[in-house]
Amino acid sequence: MGQLTHVDKDGKAEMVDVSAKVDNLRTAEAFGEMEVSEKLFSLIQENKLAKGDVLTVAKIAAIQGAKKTSELIPLCHNIFITKIEIDIKLSEDKHCIEIKSFAKTVSKTGIEMEALTAVSIAALTIYDMCKAVEKTIKIKNIHLLSKTGGKSGEFNSVKKLED
Amino acid sequence: MGQLTHVDKDGKAEMVDVSAKVDNLRTAEAFGEMEVSEKLFSLIQENKLAKGDVLTVAKIAAIQGAKKTSELIPLCHNIFITKIEIDIKLSEDKHCIEIKSFAKTVSKTGIEMEALTAVSIAALTIYDMCKAVEKTIKIKNIHLLSKTGGKSGEFNSVKKLED
Amino acid sequence: MGQLTHVDKDGKAEMVDVSAKVDNLRTAEAFGEMEVSEKLFSLIQENKLAKGDVLTVAKIAAIQGAKKTSELIPLCHNIFITKIEIDIKLSEDKHCIEIKSFAKTVSKTGIEMEALTAVSIAALTIYDMCKAVEKTIKIKNIHLLSKTGGKSGEFNSVKKLED
Amino acid sequence: MGQLTHVDKDGKAEMVDVSAKVDNLRTAEAFGEMEVSEKLFSLIQENKLAKGDVLTVAKIAAIQGAKKTSELIPLCHNIFITKIEIDIKLSEDKHCIEIKSFAKTVSKTGIEMEALTAVSIAALTIYDMCKAVEKTIKIKNIHLLSKTGGKSGEFNSVKKLED
Amino acid sequence: MGQLTHVDKDGKAEMVDVSAKVDNLRTAEAFGEMEVSEKLFSLIQENKLAKGDVLTVAKIAAIQGAKKTSELIPLCHNIFITKIEIDIKLSEDKHCIEIKSFAKTVSKTGIEMEALTAVSIAALTIYDMCKAVEKTIKIKNIHLLSKTGGKSGEFNSVKKLED
Amino acid sequence: MGQLTHVDKDGKAEMVDVSAKVDNLRTAEAFGEMEVSEKLFSLIQENKLAKGDVLTVAKIAAIQGAKKTSELIPLCHNIFITKIEIDIKLSEDKHCIEIKSFAKTVSKTGIEMEALTAVSIAALTIYDMCKAVEKTIKIKNIHLLSKTGGKSGEFNSVKKLED
Repeated sequence: MGQLTHVDKDGKAEMVDVSAKVDNLRTAEAFGEMEVSEKLFSLIQENKLAKGDVLTVAKIAAIQGAKKTSELIPLCHNIFITKIEIDIKLSEDKHCIEIKSFAKTVSKTGIEMEALTAVSIAALTIYDMCKAVEKTIKIKNIHLLSKTGGKSGEFNSVKKLED
Repeated sequence: MGQLTHVDKDGKAEMVDVSAKVDNLRTAEAFGEMEVSEKLFSLIQENKLAKGDVLTVAKIAAIQGAKKTSELIPLCHNIFITKIEIDIKLSEDKHCIEIKSFAKTVSKTGIEMEALTAVSIAALTIYDMCKAVEKTIKIKNIHLLSKTGGKSGEFNSVKKLED
Repeated sequence: MGQLTHVDKDGKAEMVDVSAKVDNLRTAEAFGEMEVSEKLFSLIQENKLAKGDVLTVAKIAAIQGAKKTSELIPLCHNIFITKIEIDIKLSEDKHCIEIKSFAKTVSKTGIEMEALTAVSIAALTIYDMCKAVEKTIKIKNIHLLSKTGGKSGEFNSVKKLED
Repeated sequence: MGQLTHVDKDGKAEMVDVSAKVDNLRTAEAFGEMEVSEKLFSLIQENKLAKGDVLTVAKIAAIQGAKKTSELIPLCHNIFITKIEIDIKLSEDKHCIEIKSFAKTVSKTGIEMEALTAVSIAALTIYDMCKAVEKTIKIKNIHLLSKTGGKSGEFNSVKKLED
Repeated sequence: MGQLTHVDKDGKAEMVDVSAKVDNLRTAEAFGEMEVSEKLFSLIQENKLAKGDVLTVAKIAAIQGAKKTSELIPLCHNIFITKIEIDIKLSEDKHCIEIKSFAKTVSKTGIEMEALTAVSIAALTIYDMCKAVEKTIKIKNIHLLSKTGGKSGEFNSVKKLED
Repeated sequence: MGQLTHVDKDGKAEMVDVSAKVDNLRTAEAFGEMEVSEKLFSLIQENKLAKGDVLTVAKIAAIQGAKKTSELIPLCHNIFITKIEIDIKLSEDKHCIEIKSFAKTVSKTGIEMEALTAVSIAALTIYDMCKAVEKTIKIKNIHLLSKTGGKSGEFNSVKKLED
């Protein structure tokens, strides 16, 4: 069981000790999608065209949620976030809402969980604003796009969102 | 745009006024899955067999996360949660982790977002404990299974998890 | 000193006991202003005309802040908020940003502090986004416009904002 | 719109990236006032003379509020606060409560918002304890007194409070 | 294992379902002590005689902490607290600081944990302010004094603090 | 009164200024015990033998609570925690639950309060899960075992728990 870094040899949960690590620049990008009906997709698109608030509310919730990551995820360290960025795109051909986050820190540990939390909270926030219209919305495909910095080196998912 | 209940006629975000609604029993069930490699699936399964902590940590994080829903989702009301329950199953044939939540309230508004937040936080917590082993974990298929109570009546998704 | 309701006869702070009060509908409206230079006023106005995010971010922060009132104000009770609404107007003749909040609860105690906290947090959020342009912004004139419900009856300030 | 640092070229909100900034000592002082009736002023003064708790409760709330700044203000970074100090003076000739904060950090970004949040929360806390006596209290004149550290250099308001 | 109410038949943690319970008045009193040296006891006593802030800060922290109980204790429900009261006495003959809390709610579940959390946070806060003087402070004897309301009826500890 | 570091010469509370201190490795260990009846001791022991959740829930709550220390203790600084570890032992001969925490930081100030808060929250969490069985549980003997790092040097209590 030694390969799970957050449990000890008996499988018991434990926080990783990062005391001896150096503070350096670390980044992470995460992605997620929401599958909605054509009707709901149109309503969100109209709201965006009319410069409505739906996507901005989701973006702000995502930034605030990222800052709460260590409160939400028990074994996460409370790190200093130097930048969080959220992009939400409406992908017309797939009738999909695509959420992408980019997070940076100068810290002793990585910022993947903050990036993934941001995406999750953005999706839940959009869900909340749309749930009266449609109860079959699906949040899907949440995963890490890339990470840099840290001992374990760089990571790049092949499913990177085209900008 | 009038069909999005959380925006006004100009598309501007607004909290729904629930002052005149009655307090009644409302429930919601939500579901989500995690797609992991065979190797990681085995590690989690061994941890469970060894009665390790991974799934318990996720469950506790989910309950705590559900109680934070109105802090995380800007237009959510802060409601009194009477019960939250999290079940996490390892589905061997699909190499999948299945997360199901069940939430109850006696309140003026529904508890769907609490159920969905619980599932999302459980998934993120498992991700966190496993991310050193595997960076290609995918959180997917997060959706509402059912809701009861409230003016809009009952809802039952067809994709209900077999218990 | 008996007239201060939140201190005992020795002047010591104490939370008011609301156990015996009835749950009824209570509302509060609050107001505040920001005094900015002509230059900064124009930048904010352009952002609004371009349907930028500045005022939406402030509105969302205000709603989230109102929900945190009992965490921020030591002797406040944690009440169930049924509605919060924030309106932000740019008053061209005074070069002023006018912030108005309206809050509702069905509860054993009033919702004035939530309304006032919402206004304060909206103002601080706008300040934050503008502080690089101008360091002499002034937040002023924060006060209660009206309250209804509760034993102490209705209150209406004469300085009510014209809608 | 480029002059607003917290919005991009389209007016969309964004967190400033402070990854490349150096950690150095930064300070900020903020000020605010409360305008109250002669009667309420006397009650607060008596509470102070009797060494009651009103001003201490406000001071503690202000310190706690300052530590919550990045939770309250969406685009604020979560910084390490090395010192917060609150002084509250009763100015007899103006029947005014004067609140002054002083905040310090060793960080990549400034601490103005923490100083301003501290003043705002102190004022709201005093308001809360006094609102049963008087509903026409006004919170006013909240502004930055000074800042040091950081690229943008020193700032000193002319309206500095005489100590 | 059925006798532990917060675990299921397999020993797994679960939140108690209080949906069907009635809202009624429930109270709880808790107690705790701090054992300090004669020297530290004198310093705290002098601070109190000089109407210093030590005990007030602890009292405010206790009230704020009680309101955070459901955030801190995973299986606690988030209830509406109608009153919290903290009394801190310096017991000269035992060189002891005695902390007593009294909490009330009108709710579907009891308020014992809020009362006990208040006592614990008051003690930790006093510890924090005194730790530079003495590192051998002991927090002890934290227990429930009484509870009323709820199905399980009244409870009165024999070790009730004489007022 | 100068010997209490968290109050000024008038006995007024103040946060210690740590701006000029250096970031270095600091650790703290804390301890606490719970006195329970033989019957409750057996139930907890059975839950542990059956690899139930009681002790894991307490451990997770303790870690999360430690991360909230600066929110709970008014004059505490918000520091970056690099490691928290909780050990809970059932001491059969004393019918006692022994809780030990170990906390590490690389910071300008010590981590004693985080270690003590972790122990307190673990104890309260166990209390919560057991309170339906027994209302006479006692939390006792909470104290600092050791600290290292910082200007005031090392500290080692004689009552160190044998591992």
